[in-house]
Amino acid sequence: MLLHWSPRSPFVRKVMIFAHETGLADRITTTRTVVAMSKPHAELMTENPLSKIPTLRLEDGTVLYDSYVICEYLDTLHGGPRLIPREGPARFLELRRHAMATGFLDLLILLRNERDKPHPMPELLAAFEAKARAALAAVEAEIDSIPRGLAQFTLAVLGSYLDFRFADIDWRATCPRFAAFHAEFEKRPSMQATLVTEG
Amino acid sequence: MLLHWSPRSPFVRKVMIFAHETGLADRITTTRTVVAMSKPHAELMTENPLSKIPTLRLEDGTVLYDSYVICEYLDTLHGGPRLIPREGPARFLELRRHAMATGFLDLLILLRNERDKPHPMPELLAAFEAKARAALAAVEAEIDSIPRGLAQFTLAVLGSYLDFRFADIDWRATCPRFAAFHAEFEKRPSMQATLVTEG
Repeated sequence: MLLHWSPRSPFVRKVMIFAHETGLADRITTTRTVVAMSKPHAELMTENPLSKIPTLRLEDGTVLYDSYVICEYLDTLHGGPRLIPREGPARFLELRRHAMATGFLDLLILLRNERDKPHPMPELLAAFEAKARAALAAVEAEIDSIPRGLAQFTLAVLGSYLDFRFADIDWRATCPRFAAFHAEFEKRPSMQATLVTEG
Repeated sequence: MLLHWSPRSPFVRKVMIFAHETGLADRITTTRTVVAMSKPHAELMTENPLSKIPTLRLEDGTVLYDSYVICEYLDTLHGGPRLIPREGPARFLELRRHAMATGFLDLLILLRNERDKPHPMPELLAAFEAKARAALAAVEAEIDSIPRGLAQFTLAVLGSYLDFRFADIDWRATCPRFAAFHAEFEKRPSMQATLVTEG
């Protein structure tokens, strides 16, 4: 399998952590594909017209995106316990928590893009920051009850992404339980194998 | 079930079409909840900190989002054929197509927000428009092979959303097959029951 990859995309990191946690990392070949919101990547767009990573190409040419779809596919390839429960209330709880974590990442990417503009809109910055505070409080409220799985991995990536891009948001100050989870999870080989680099 | 709803959100419309197509619409009570990217909705944020609709509250208090998660949940409640295949290549093809359609809608919402700003960034507008053209070409290439289901419904919503917000993108000019699909699908009761209004 070939994964369009970059070392700094949190959505790529989520997929790679999922692959490491399920023992599938060595079946994935990565190719560095750099995208930015304002820079469409012509070659990538032949496989994913939205020019987003991660995008995965299987051996038979099938192309899969987005990061959720790729993780669900990977979850069918290993023999261990499913990391996205297959059905029932456990599934929908996991999917809702994953939607919270991934929607929070989407929000942070929009916030970062807005901040970097020559004319950021103050009301948009304020709205994004209010949602980020609410989302952090929601994560803090339930982090200790989230089992090993896709939502938990996405939250681990989120904590690291906050550190990498939002040093001004002192998230550990308001989220001691999330901070404790992150400090522990960070030691895992899947996190160590996917460290974000400036490279 | 209580659905946070607005008449103009394409993601809400997708959920409502899914509910109509599966015979579940009369089990959903809607409550009008108006959100905008720059206007967080304090009450909604107690259920969904990201302040996004659709958000669904079940009878037992369980809250589900985003639109994909809600549709997958609805797909477990009816007795007809599943509209999101449960497994195998058909599932991942459906999910990839759905990711294309929903990512396209996300892109259009970003494009509309950027256009409406006092200082839109020309390179961002150009990038969004290039991706929209590529995504339209991708939809046109496969629309005729997409079966009845979540991805197809999302593409029907997309066509109407283009009409509603992007009259300047003359999508039918470059997408005759997508236009023919949309003209036919538009007649369905699920589409007629969820018409977008200015109200």
